[in-house]
Amino acid sequence: MPELRKDPITGRWVIIATDRAKRPSDFLRQTPQPPSAGFCPFDYGNEHKTPPEVLAYRNSGERDQPGWRVRVVPNKFPVLGIEGDLNRQGEGMYDKMNGIGAHEVIIEGPDHNKTMGDMPEKQIEEVLWAYKDRVNDLKKDGRFRYILLFKNHGDAAGSTMEHPHSQLIALPVVPKRVKEEVDASKLFFDLKERCIFCDIIRQESAAGVRLISETDRFTVLAPYAPRYPFETWILPKRHGSHFEDADAPTLANLAWIMRTTIRKLERVLERPPYNFVVHSAPVQDGPLAHYHWHIEIIPRLTKVAGFEWATGFYINPTPPEESAKFMREAGLG
Amino acid sequence: MPELRKDPITGRWVIIATDRAKRPSDFLRQTPQPPSAGFCPFDYGNEHKTPPEVLAYRNSGERDQPGWRVRVVPNKFPVLGIEGDLNRQGEGMYDKMNGIGAHEVIIEGPDHNKTMGDMPEKQIEEVLWAYKDRVNDLKKDGRFRYILLFKNHGDAAGSTMEHPHSQLIALPVVPKRVKEEVDASKLFFDLKERCIFCDIIRQESAAGVRLISETDRFTVLAPYAPRYPFETWILPKRHGSHFEDADAPTLANLAWIMRTTIRKLERVLERPPYNFVVHSAPVQDGPLAHYHWHIEIIPRLTKVAGFEWATGFYINPTPPEESAKFMREAGLG
Repeated sequence: MPELRKDPITGRWVIIATDRAKRPSDFLRQTPQPPSAGFCPFDYGNEHKTPPEVLAYRNSGERDQPGWRVRVVPNKFPVLGIEGDLNRQGEGMYDKMNGIGAHEVIIEGPDHNKTMGDMPEKQIEEVLWAYKDRVNDLKKDGRFRYILLFKNHGDAAGSTMEHPHSQLIALPVVPKRVKEEVDASKLFFDLKERCIFCDIIRQESAAGVRLISETDRFTVLAPYAPRYPFETWILPKRHGSHFEDADAPTLANLAWIMRTTIRKLERVLERPPYNFVVHSAPVQDGPLAHYHWHIEIIPRLTKVAGFEWATGFYINPTPPEESAKFMREAGLG
Repeated sequence: MPELRKDPITGRWVIIATDRAKRPSDFLRQTPQPPSAGFCPFDYGNEHKTPPEVLAYRNSGERDQPGWRVRVVPNKFPVLGIEGDLNRQGEGMYDKMNGIGAHEVIIEGPDHNKTMGDMPEKQIEEVLWAYKDRVNDLKKDGRFRYILLFKNHGDAAGSTMEHPHSQLIALPVVPKRVKEEVDASKLFFDLKERCIFCDIIRQESAAGVRLISETDRFTVLAPYAPRYPFETWILPKRHGSHFEDADAPTLANLAWIMRTTIRKLERVLERPPYNFVVHSAPVQDGPLAHYHWHIEIIPRLTKVAGFEWATGFYINPTPPEESAKFMREAGLG
């Protein structure tokens, strides 16, 4: 059973994945993933190589058979275990608990080589529905305080599988950076009685210099103080704190804007590795007036230097006004 | 002039290095650094290729001539400018100021190929003295609130120069993660009237399982909740909040333990890329009873995945009890 341990100084929780324990020699060569011609457990016909599916949208076929369009399975090497009690304990001055949680893989389609930028809009929409359905199912489990949805695309972005997929991690704690973001937007709300994200959308929409594109329902922008070159945020125009409450027309429009935005990044930066993370409110909270769900996309262009992770102080060589201009001029929107 | 911009939600400051602005094509190929046979501005005889030195410890020679043992120069491509006013301004709801600060390079010795693990102890001691002397000089400038000292070793750790060097960045703001660490240790002190780092040293010294080595003056340990495999902290046993106040015997002993610790990491992990960062209190604060300076060393063994930077929630496949055991058994201590 992995352990969740809390740093006594900063309060940051860390998963110590004891089941995956590595000896020093495991780190000595970071071998690239096998070529795409090799075996892939996410391809049609290999369904028995993954744990049994927890969700699938299908054209045909039985459970754990081909015929699915989007398929969700537990991660075969989960960083957290689904069974058991949290068993919160002290260890001298330290705090720990069992590493209880869910770790699932959203297989975005049967085609091994079709990345999210190449997929039809409808397929991305179904991936977003799978996110929503899984979160709404898992949040019924009161042990889970936060559910992370994210995608690592490309080796440099931390992906270990080539087949297009996203991941979900349900956690018994709210991660530190998420809590900070929610708490800080609460402070702003207490002061102004307005959502800070709604204010940002209004200011950026009026100023235009960091705006990338807009639809009826979404605003895409380069944030004012981005940590990374070409950092891109997608925000719903209508206020809402929880991604999983987004309705059908919103998800349809989000699919369109996600596809367009990824294609713009791919055109401007020649198909870079990237990560995106859905920022949403803690799942056991009711609707929050002060928090606004959104998606942050970060192409992995620069190496993060040591002092950046240590200090939270980033150096970004590309002003967001420039990256937004390149993105606007890439067309497609 | 670069700009310092504040993220309106989290309060995180970012340097937008407009002078270094990059077009998308600059990111398309991350070319490795030229081979060591090439020209190096940090070698003897090339002193005129760097900005004029601000400090050097010498055996012989004039300023900006060969004969130095350790040499400190302004970074030729500084991320911050030293001249001018902060000129704090609003931009609608946003905050910015001029990117005022110092960015210096500590050239650790004339030998291009001798890494810190290979250097004699005395040489490391002089590097530490250069850190101390530069911080004590720069902190007289009241514009600077924080001075970062760090080292990126190896390409994967963000180093762009092969010649052994460390860096110093003096900032007009206290970085977010540093402020968090200082504030959190203050909360603990208010509750217990003890320094949390002193408590950690006592508990780890008694428990032993995460202890790597000890001297009269220092404790080296794997922290209880490490973010990364083989994360290693070096803490002075005697309480002190500011690195730059360390006395001569402390720096001599630190040189010995730094060398030993880096050699242990190099032996166990076959000379990995690594970063270290000196964690010290904000330079304009007087001595703090609640904060305890220390050095954090992180070998760069795993790729940081997208959700880790987004959430501050880390997955570490190596329990610190295991990494500490490997480090103890590496000998040299």
